[in-house]
Amino acid sequence: MKPNLEDQAASAEGPWEECFELAVQLALRAGQIIRKALSEEKQVSTKTSAADLVTETDHLVEDLIISEMQKRFPSHRFIAEEASAAGAKCVLTPSPTWIIDPIDGTCNFVHRFPTVAVSIGFAVNQELEFGVIYHCTEERLYTGRRGRGAFCNGQRLRVSAETDLSRALVLTEIGPKRDPATLKLFLSNMERLLHAKAHGVRVIGSSTLALCLLASGAADAYYQFGLHCWDLAAATVIIREAGGIVMDTSGGPLDLMSCRVVAAGTREMATLIAQALQTINYGRDDEK
Amino acid sequence: MKPNLEDQAASAEGPWEECFELAVQLALRAGQIIRKALSEEKQVSTKTSAADLVTETDHLVEDLIISEMQKRFPSHRFIAEEASAAGAKCVLTPSPTWIIDPIDGTCNFVHRFPTVAVSIGFAVNQELEFGVIYHCTEERLYTGRRGRGAFCNGQRLRVSAETDLSRALVLTEIGPKRDPATLKLFLSNMERLLHAKAHGVRVIGSSTLALCLLASGAADAYYQFGLHCWDLAAATVIIREAGGIVMDTSGGPLDLMSCRVVAAGTREMATLIAQALQTINYGRDDEK
Repeated sequence: MKPNLEDQAASAEGPWEECFELAVQLALRAGQIIRKALSEEKQVSTKTSAADLVTETDHLVEDLIISEMQKRFPSHRFIAEEASAAGAKCVLTPSPTWIIDPIDGTCNFVHRFPTVAVSIGFAVNQELEFGVIYHCTEERLYTGRRGRGAFCNGQRLRVSAETDLSRALVLTEIGPKRDPATLKLFLSNMERLLHAKAHGVRVIGSSTLALCLLASGAADAYYQFGLHCWDLAAATVIIREAGGIVMDTSGGPLDLMSCRVVAAGTREMATLIAQALQTINYGRDDEK
Repeated sequence: MKPNLEDQAASAEGPWEECFELAVQLALRAGQIIRKALSEEKQVSTKTSAADLVTETDHLVEDLIISEMQKRFPSHRFIAEEASAAGAKCVLTPSPTWIIDPIDGTCNFVHRFPTVAVSIGFAVNQELEFGVIYHCTEERLYTGRRGRGAFCNGQRLRVSAETDLSRALVLTEIGPKRDPATLKLFLSNMERLLHAKAHGVRVIGSSTLALCLLASGAADAYYQFGLHCWDLAAATVIIREAGGIVMDTSGGPLDLMSCRVVAAGTREMATLIAQALQTINYGRDDEK
């Protein structure tokens, strides 16, 4: 029997080598498209709020990535930001599944604020196998593969060892809901961390790249309410492989579909952050 | 009579050509030192709060810049961050004056968060002549010279033309004071802008680089209470030469010593931001 391409993927390099290589290729190609688009005028429409913008380029990049993956791996499943916004169900089954954010930081993209990334995660049996994130404006490629370490442009990543909140640089994002009650909770969480004397709080407009900065040791913790599985999937592998912790804001294990996360270089730091936070309810990705 | 070096500075290229060239050279040299330091362990002490950290490298870089400038231009005056922290008076006279922040984003620097810059401004007759800012981790050199445009790595900068706050990306910084009353005001200002439906607020940890992003059109407005003249001087020339507005948070003209600022691509946007803000009192640089 002639082996098909999917069988070949389970090669000597590891079972998902070919998938990983394709993810890297497509992230770089998508990055080129995004960089080109950043030099042109853009047609912007709104999704759920002004902060959650969607552009032609999001759709173009997502379609490119998914169509190339489907050609090579026709049995694989996909969870992707724009398809979900258009009504596709967001369910992680045991099948090999690609979890894709074509442009993380769309609001940044619209403003040409240079913090924009492509994020491609891959899960099998509901376990994350690898993540590929391309910070396209700075041409930094972050990768993490289960059991094989995390890298940025070939350089090994290592999280911060900080355990003391009063010495921490903390990253967060505002989240898409902007009603007064949600904003109050968002600001109150920031206030709690600053009262606890965190060195600083940074808001860069891309969950994915904030998580990559955490993986590289440039910050000590990250938390957010209102992000999605496609913001988290790839970055989770990268952080874990850099020695870090990704958990639920309740302090329990990460639930990729729960729209909330705490990540840190150490379990102590993640726990301190989780304890300081008030919950902001954004529902679940798999119940939308 | 033999012309001295300072007379030669008034050459055919413009009166302050030699000063500008020295600023560029020293910013690049300082950037090299900072990049090297980022790869080493650091000895950190605190200034007024945990958020306002000072490192050996700040002192090293400031001493290098000032000593080289003094050698070449012995009659010039200096206003610089570390000298001021050590008690030097911060007064802008009509004499040629260098206004220097050796490392803007010291908290970022301490955490190796890659948003760190050297800022060198130059004023004569109390008027800003040029500014040189080097984003050393990304190797981006921003320059602005009065009447001669603003550039990043040779590419001309142009601010955003946005006038509508509900379409704006706004930058700010938390500021060094972290007492509960100051934090409340800081968060309340952020809340006002988000209620006014600004697309987003970003906090990157370097006033100087936030202002450079504004100059490049990547954001529409910037405001801060609690920054200093050395955070503002160089960036003000760059923003103005990129077509933007730098004003006081009262809506009046910029006062370099007032520890507060609103900047935007358009006067309309700057005015809207100024109107939305509650004042946070940080005193004046020239009364400390």
